[in-house]
Amino acid sequence: MITDTLNYEFLALKSCTYLNTPATGLVSKEAREEQQNYLRNFDRQGSTYIDELEYPFKSDLKNKIATYFGCHFGQIGLVPSFSAGINYLLSGLYSLESVAYLKTDYPSLTLPLSLGTYNSIEIAPNEDGFYSEEKIITQCVETGVRFLFLSHVQYNSGQKLDIEFIGAKLKAHEIFIIVDSTQSAGNSDFNFSKSNISCAIMSCYKWLNAGFGSGIILAKESFLSALDIKTGGFTAVLWKENSNTVDRGLAQLQPGHVAPFALTGLSSALDMHLKLKESNAHLIGKNLLSQFFESFPQIENIVGNPDNDSYANFCCIRDKERKLSGKLTNKNIVHTYRNGVVRLGFHFYNTEEDVEILINAISS
Amino acid sequence: MITDTLNYEFLALKSCTYLNTPATGLVSKEAREEQQNYLRNFDRQGSTYIDELEYPFKSDLKNKIATYFGCHFGQIGLVPSFSAGINYLLSGLYSLESVAYLKTDYPSLTLPLSLGTYNSIEIAPNEDGFYSEEKIITQCVETGVRFLFLSHVQYNSGQKLDIEFIGAKLKAHEIFIIVDSTQSAGNSDFNFSKSNISCAIMSCYKWLNAGFGSGIILAKESFLSALDIKTGGFTAVLWKENSNTVDRGLAQLQPGHVAPFALTGLSSALDMHLKLKESNAHLIGKNLLSQFFESFPQIENIVGNPDNDSYANFCCIRDKERKLSGKLTNKNIVHTYRNGVVRLGFHFYNTEEDVEILINAISS
Repeated sequence: MITDTLNYEFLALKSCTYLNTPATGLVSKEAREEQQNYLRNFDRQGSTYIDELEYPFKSDLKNKIATYFGCHFGQIGLVPSFSAGINYLLSGLYSLESVAYLKTDYPSLTLPLSLGTYNSIEIAPNEDGFYSEEKIITQCVETGVRFLFLSHVQYNSGQKLDIEFIGAKLKAHEIFIIVDSTQSAGNSDFNFSKSNISCAIMSCYKWLNAGFGSGIILAKESFLSALDIKTGGFTAVLWKENSNTVDRGLAQLQPGHVAPFALTGLSSALDMHLKLKESNAHLIGKNLLSQFFESFPQIENIVGNPDNDSYANFCCIRDKERKLSGKLTNKNIVHTYRNGVVRLGFHFYNTEEDVEILINAISS
Repeated sequence: MITDTLNYEFLALKSCTYLNTPATGLVSKEAREEQQNYLRNFDRQGSTYIDELEYPFKSDLKNKIATYFGCHFGQIGLVPSFSAGINYLLSGLYSLESVAYLKTDYPSLTLPLSLGTYNSIEIAPNEDGFYSEEKIITQCVETGVRFLFLSHVQYNSGQKLDIEFIGAKLKAHEIFIIVDSTQSAGNSDFNFSKSNISCAIMSCYKWLNAGFGSGIILAKESFLSALDIKTGGFTAVLWKENSNTVDRGLAQLQPGHVAPFALTGLSSALDMHLKLKESNAHLIGKNLLSQFFESFPQIENIVGNPDNDSYANFCCIRDKERKLSGKLTNKNIVHTYRNGVVRLGFHFYNTEEDVEILINAISS
């Protein structure tokens, strides 16, 4: 097991078959130890520790983020969640701005877009629930939208969109692409600088295994300068004795504290993910999904197209009468059931044995 | 000591004189134990524990908030911080809306207001740095603003504004009052239902002693229905199989997860504050501040007017050359120094001995 090789321990794996990382990722014992260390120091020193920690800790954290995502230090913002980031960001779009998004994408992304006063284009999926990259590109170009919002990996199918391809094709049309990376960061390869993605926002409690309370914004300068961001807080204040001034841009997208406890969890989780990436172990889940597809008898019930290689490392299975979900629950296989669909995800801490347990439960 | 009577322990008090609660409050050992319990359960069960916890835990937490602030269950929203709350809220104001705020109020409140496209009225303080409630009322009425934003307690003077009085006077003029309670919640009396305050937003890491990562929004129905809130996330989604609908209003002000670890800290801290309130111990800090004023030799250096009874439980002292701050640091008295001013705060866990140590340090 990769977790043994790397010396990381996940307690929940001892008592269940955990296939619910698309909902909530597990946190390693090692990350908890770093968080405990933070708590001990804070409780002994209070604000003194926060003041000492602030600058070196955040610099170190941003360096890890820069290495992991292939971006520059100055392109990184820290927020409590994806939702915080996207809602702050949308304050910067003018009303009546033209935006495109995917009709069945995650509501945390589509809801604030649909509530705005934008000129919106909803892009529809194919009949199988998957999206065609070509169709996304064509619709964006033909309608002349200025912003395209989409999740790298779709929460209700597991489809991983080829955002590098979409980015390359839309480059000449000067369309800004904003990506929700919550379902891809930690299980996929992505290089921010090399891509034509203007902005990536993510929560870190799923595949990055950071626990709740931390999120990341990556944003390019050209994109930020096209916005008129209205949000802000103390991080955007340049304190002066007589009158403060405003640090415009990325600083405005980070109003309010992000809990140091949560950021400590993220920092430790990134250490682990940097090691996983070195040995390509972040792609283990994808191989386990392929193994599952090979043995699963009701392949026609899988949302999307299993012959197509565009899944990340989870899938959704139609289960209107909740029979499959019931079987899994009986065998202590943790999963999500929502809207008549079972969702199953495989992460680096899952094993071939987990897939066998799953297949046996389904056949029972 | 009240902490002995109530059986709460704050480790930092053993190694320093902690007068920096206006910056960051201490967290009790007892709150940490509840948080450790959460971590143990999450690490053993992952998402299963989150699913089980979600509803009963948040109901219980909201009941405590309702009791503490005198409001209804349905008027309570949970956010990661004050800044998150105010920025989400401002998405609901129309551009060109008329707003008033205090010129020297905390930048986390004034910055997003000044960055908006509102018709803004800045209300100036008196020469001593304090604000006159009468002047605030007059300026709001004369300029006919629709929204007044102000902090209950001013971060850079310690002045506690009489928001009940301001609210009563502005009631007939149909002006909505939005209060930042970050510097008052946990050290002051306030009853939301009895007041004419439309909305109170706060971070809970200062006087409420909850640690970082939690914030509260209290909002009245009449106020929410006057807004057109644009923010939203999964908490505002009413999941339906074929098409989701939107839970308009307060649910839209709570996009994204608030970390359960942080909410557990808040829940435990509220248990403590409910007990403190029963014995009026939440007002201990105010008495310690009065004791300090009586013994402090350079009373003329205090910002505001020490003859006036309108301080909460902290004060600011002019110290251009950082002499006073240096003396305090030498004696291990934790405080804030910013813009030529020393800030000192007294909370229920401080004692008369702390005031004596402070006076001795100043006289050294």
